[in-house]
Amino acid sequence: MKLEPQWVVGFVDGEGCFHVGIAAHREMTRGFQILLEFTVVQHKRDEQVLYALKDFFGCGVVRNNHGDRLAFRVRKFEHLKTIIVPFFVKHALKTKKNTDFKKFCRVLQLMEKGHHLTVVGIEEIRTIADQMNVKAMKVESLTLTEDDSGEDAGVYQVISE
Amino acid sequence: MKLEPQWVVGFVDGEGCFHVGIAAHREMTRGFQILLEFTVVQHKRDEQVLYALKDFFGCGVVRNNHGDRLAFRVRKFEHLKTIIVPFFVKHALKTKKNTDFKKFCRVLQLMEKGHHLTVVGIEEIRTIADQMNVKAMKVESLTLTEDDSGEDAGVYQVISE
Repeated sequence: MKLEPQWVVGFVDGEGCFHVGIAAHREMTRGFQILLEFTVVQHKRDEQVLYALKDFFGCGVVRNNHGDRLAFRVRKFEHLKTIIVPFFVKHALKTKKNTDFKKFCRVLQLMEKGHHLTVVGIEEIRTIADQMNVKAMKVESLTLTEDDSGEDAGVYQVISE
Repeated sequence: MKLEPQWVVGFVDGEGCFHVGIAAHREMTRGFQILLEFTVVQHKRDEQVLYALKDFFGCGVVRNNHGDRLAFRVRKFEHLKTIIVPFFVKHALKTKKNTDFKKFCRVLQLMEKGHHLTVVGIEEIRTIADQMNVKAMKVESLTLTEDDSGEDAGVYQVISE
């Protein structure tokens, strides 16, 4: 299945999510995990569309989500930075999801500059995450399984305050 | 906001619905109402996208849905037949929603031939509607309000068995 850029934009306007997740680190008394994630979730009957997205972007993985749902997701910082973000900068989303995308980009820029390693930076990221439609992800979403080994773990830093 | 055909296909693959509704008629002891409807529902924050779809297709209406959601919808038989169906025949949906679309087309063809006026025809339409992901609509969905006066009522026939 070959996808056209505008189909991808339309589909992501409907079904895509840009997540910024912040969670307390499980093994530290003080510290945070940050997760950047681009996902598209579908019922398993449309698995082929998720694999078509994976082929289209040339990155990411298709994994089980909840129940009979699957997710195409990209967590790897380099892929988000060099593939996903440039695509949606060039082909702008038309729904208000574009606002979330811009916030996602802002967090990515902050992390690239190392601001997530500072207390001030992490607070700014938290503020941005709180403003996004999809709030900070639940801690369990940050629990990485062996299944993720092929893809970037998506957790970039742990800071100790 | 100007939409491109492939964006529309992608967005409808994610957010669109093709309904075939069959309900007992409220004022007759024996008889049915049939509703064909193409809808795209969004949170009101993305109202402008629904109006952009209305402009794109040059038909349909934007109306309140449930709570803070709005729907772009087309019910008028002529518009479904001459605008909506030809568009998605030319620009095929990529998800399994295309299967629903084909069933929707089949019902439209049956109705065009007047088969919905026969008991056998209505049973075939009911069978098709039952196979679609979105089952026959609830009776209240067929309750037409004054709000619909500008658009086709969407109820094409009442038959008495």
